[in-house]
Amino acid sequence: MCNLSGESSILAATKFSFMEYINQFIDTNKQRFIDELMAFLRIPSVSADSAYKHHVADAAAFVAQKLEAAGATDVEICNTAGHPIVYGQKLINPQLPTVVVYGHYDVQPPDPLDLWNSPPFEPVIKDEKIYARGACDDKGQVYMHIKAFELMMKNNALPCNIKFMIEGEEEVGSANLGDWIRANKERLKGDVILISDTSIISNDTPSIDVGLRGLSYLEVEVTGPNRDLHSGVYGGAVANPIQVLCEMISQLKDTKQHITVDGFYDDVLSVSDADRKAMALTPFDLNEYKADLGINEVRGETGYTTLERTGIRPTLELNGIWGGYTGEGSKTVLPSKAYAKISMRLVPNQNHETITKLFAQHFEKMAPSYVKVKVTPHHGGMPYLTETTSDAYIAAEKAMETTFGKKPIPTRGGGSIPIVALFEKELGLKSVLMGFGLDSDLIHSPNEHFGIFNFLKGIETIPHFFHNYTAIKTK
Amino acid sequence: MCNLSGESSILAATKFSFMEYINQFIDTNKQRFIDELMAFLRIPSVSADSAYKHHVADAAAFVAQKLEAAGATDVEICNTAGHPIVYGQKLINPQLPTVVVYGHYDVQPPDPLDLWNSPPFEPVIKDEKIYARGACDDKGQVYMHIKAFELMMKNNALPCNIKFMIEGEEEVGSANLGDWIRANKERLKGDVILISDTSIISNDTPSIDVGLRGLSYLEVEVTGPNRDLHSGVYGGAVANPIQVLCEMISQLKDTKQHITVDGFYDDVLSVSDADRKAMALTPFDLNEYKADLGINEVRGETGYTTLERTGIRPTLELNGIWGGYTGEGSKTVLPSKAYAKISMRLVPNQNHETITKLFAQHFEKMAPSYVKVKVTPHHGGMPYLTETTSDAYIAAEKAMETTFGKKPIPTRGGGSIPIVALFEKELGLKSVLMGFGLDSDLIHSPNEHFGIFNFLKGIETIPHFFHNYTAIKTK
Repeated sequence: MCNLSGESSILAATKFSFMEYINQFIDTNKQRFIDELMAFLRIPSVSADSAYKHHVADAAAFVAQKLEAAGATDVEICNTAGHPIVYGQKLINPQLPTVVVYGHYDVQPPDPLDLWNSPPFEPVIKDEKIYARGACDDKGQVYMHIKAFELMMKNNALPCNIKFMIEGEEEVGSANLGDWIRANKERLKGDVILISDTSIISNDTPSIDVGLRGLSYLEVEVTGPNRDLHSGVYGGAVANPIQVLCEMISQLKDTKQHITVDGFYDDVLSVSDADRKAMALTPFDLNEYKADLGINEVRGETGYTTLERTGIRPTLELNGIWGGYTGEGSKTVLPSKAYAKISMRLVPNQNHETITKLFAQHFEKMAPSYVKVKVTPHHGGMPYLTETTSDAYIAAEKAMETTFGKKPIPTRGGGSIPIVALFEKELGLKSVLMGFGLDSDLIHSPNEHFGIFNFLKGIETIPHFFHNYTAIKTK
Repeated sequence: MCNLSGESSILAATKFSFMEYINQFIDTNKQRFIDELMAFLRIPSVSADSAYKHHVADAAAFVAQKLEAAGATDVEICNTAGHPIVYGQKLINPQLPTVVVYGHYDVQPPDPLDLWNSPPFEPVIKDEKIYARGACDDKGQVYMHIKAFELMMKNNALPCNIKFMIEGEEEVGSANLGDWIRANKERLKGDVILISDTSIISNDTPSIDVGLRGLSYLEVEVTGPNRDLHSGVYGGAVANPIQVLCEMISQLKDTKQHITVDGFYDDVLSVSDADRKAMALTPFDLNEYKADLGINEVRGETGYTTLERTGIRPTLELNGIWGGYTGEGSKTVLPSKAYAKISMRLVPNQNHETITKLFAQHFEKMAPSYVKVKVTPHHGGMPYLTETTSDAYIAAEKAMETTFGKKPIPTRGGGSIPIVALFEKELGLKSVLMGFGLDSDLIHSPNEHFGIFNFLKGIETIPHFFHNYTAIKTK
């Protein structure tokens, strides 16, 4: 199948047999694909916790081995200051386009463990879904690419060059990927970056994420007295850092849920009424949304819809808080310190480094004289937008239209893949976000899962993308 | 020494030889006393954490064995629904008064462990102080009584009847002592309760606690969505329970640091200007206080001094807070739940059950529609006042005057010993709080310690109390 004659024969193939043999190959091999993914999911590759370091390395080795087995060459586990990056490629002809596939094999911490119905690293299948930490984010979606690659290789149907860059630090901000990319610009030369780390609206309503928010993640520490005190002896006379932290947090947003950090909104690109109208067409039922989450009311920035609040507006969220005695029973302590983890989602053209600075200044300025505060940045990333007129977007749109039987809707996701902006800056490459998860997959939550339909649909759709993209580029 | 002839010979003894042989006996035995206390401190009797249950039982057995060795009869480890109560007695004559000694052998949890300079349950002596969890609160002070009892027994100098009631649940609210007392009223018949679980102003300035605050300790839970969510996908649109908990906590006090719980102050007895003037005589240096705690400013209720804020005014303190991801690194989660442990110190005539109800009503009323809240009472106790004109107070005052060479100052401590009010209600017995700790002993904190001076001074003073009290009662 693979040749240089460009569009005609590839499209011919697409029309007359391409779909058939993709589907047939998937049919014949799906049980093996699932079994292999389950093995991948059994490796607890939690990048945030150093206790899991060797498991993260095991996951990298797994990816490298599967890439090689699928037909990749020059496979390498590239060590970094943190967790390794797995590289592999198949170069068939320098005159054909090159697609760089990005994904991550690391996963979020599984806690709170007691809320899982089955152990997070012992995958089980229930109602046609695979339950495990990382099932959707991102091991399941990375593995779609490895199997789609195998499919194209085994059917001699890889239409262009492909390069894989699968990292192990996405869940902790891809701290070392930037340096690695800068050191490997030659090896990473290509035309576009293909990423499956996002979701579709539903299995009947495909969509492609065209906007990603940036991120600024930091930790704050409030110190009151220089030691833990007996709350009976000192309570009422000494500022309690938990109380002060709560007061400071409650002042980070006003009554309209606007973020009060000075200058926070200065660089926000306002979205045109036309774009807001287009977004409003996304199927969305507020009552279903509330029922699914078990809440009576939503809460967000005045003047914006729920989809706008999660899509086009920046946000500030508390991701964690702790201080004093949090164990069983009671302890009458007035603690010395209280802490919180806070993240802000950013939209074009906010700069995460600027926002981190603004937050730190604001938080330090608002600290009352009876406490000391410390702000520690964790990581960040820039927001990103994809053009719906780009070759890669059109190739993905056509691929999904072929396999779903419906044209996908361009959406703006609330999540962040900080690295996407970096790819553009360092490699000059645009990314297309062709994800196959669902918002209901509980990524980052207990009982994360990934539909077998979605896993196989990804494997089915990806080869169409490669053929469409090659066709367009070789016109 | 023990006889029925009442005051004269006892006072005679006191005048001419009593002090000498007390001091001589302590001199001869102090190393053994210290070694025994160290062994007691090695038992991690943390009552709040069920993981320590068998250690708590070991501590009870230790107390029972030492009471028996010192000469107590009818020693019994009384099981309860929780941790056991150790009882022992020495009845020498029904016509002589009976002093009931109360104390507790359980200790506060030791965490945060990393702030201890030496392991909390491996006592060490540094600068004439014993460092260990429970060194002062209350093992060290309980052991003073056991050794003072041994001293009186070995010198045939016990002037009256004595009963010991040493419990193992004081640090978790003495949940089961009430039932046990009601079931043992006969056995507990006596004239007064003697407790050493408080502190003196300094080693040069003895004091006796005449006021104890009551306590209402509870836990609050705020629930937002029915599961942990990805903060990028849902952040900005769904109420974050950490944020809401912080907002609710920040509304529990107004700008004057008045507690906003409706009806909270209704039953507070106002303290006379005369009493406030008397309290103001307590030596106190605000700059030393701030320097000791490493704070620039104190914070408390407008219109009251620091001593008044901790002594005569009710307070509300955050003892713990937790929610979301609190581990290493970062997790972009919008959690389902957030929690806090809150305790209120109460003054006469506040009722802890009423206050707990008022708080729960207030907290539920202030909860916004987009969250659910739950308030779980932990434990509580009534506030208490001792008359400085009572026989027991006078006996304690004279005893301290004898051993410190200075008349003790009546003070009002901020802490709570909820059981004291219960003794009065159930047994009709007043308590006298003759403590020997220091506020700087870091009870409830890392590096808790107890001065060897204080330990021995307690052993020295207690026999004087027994003799003074018997003398007064047998006049």
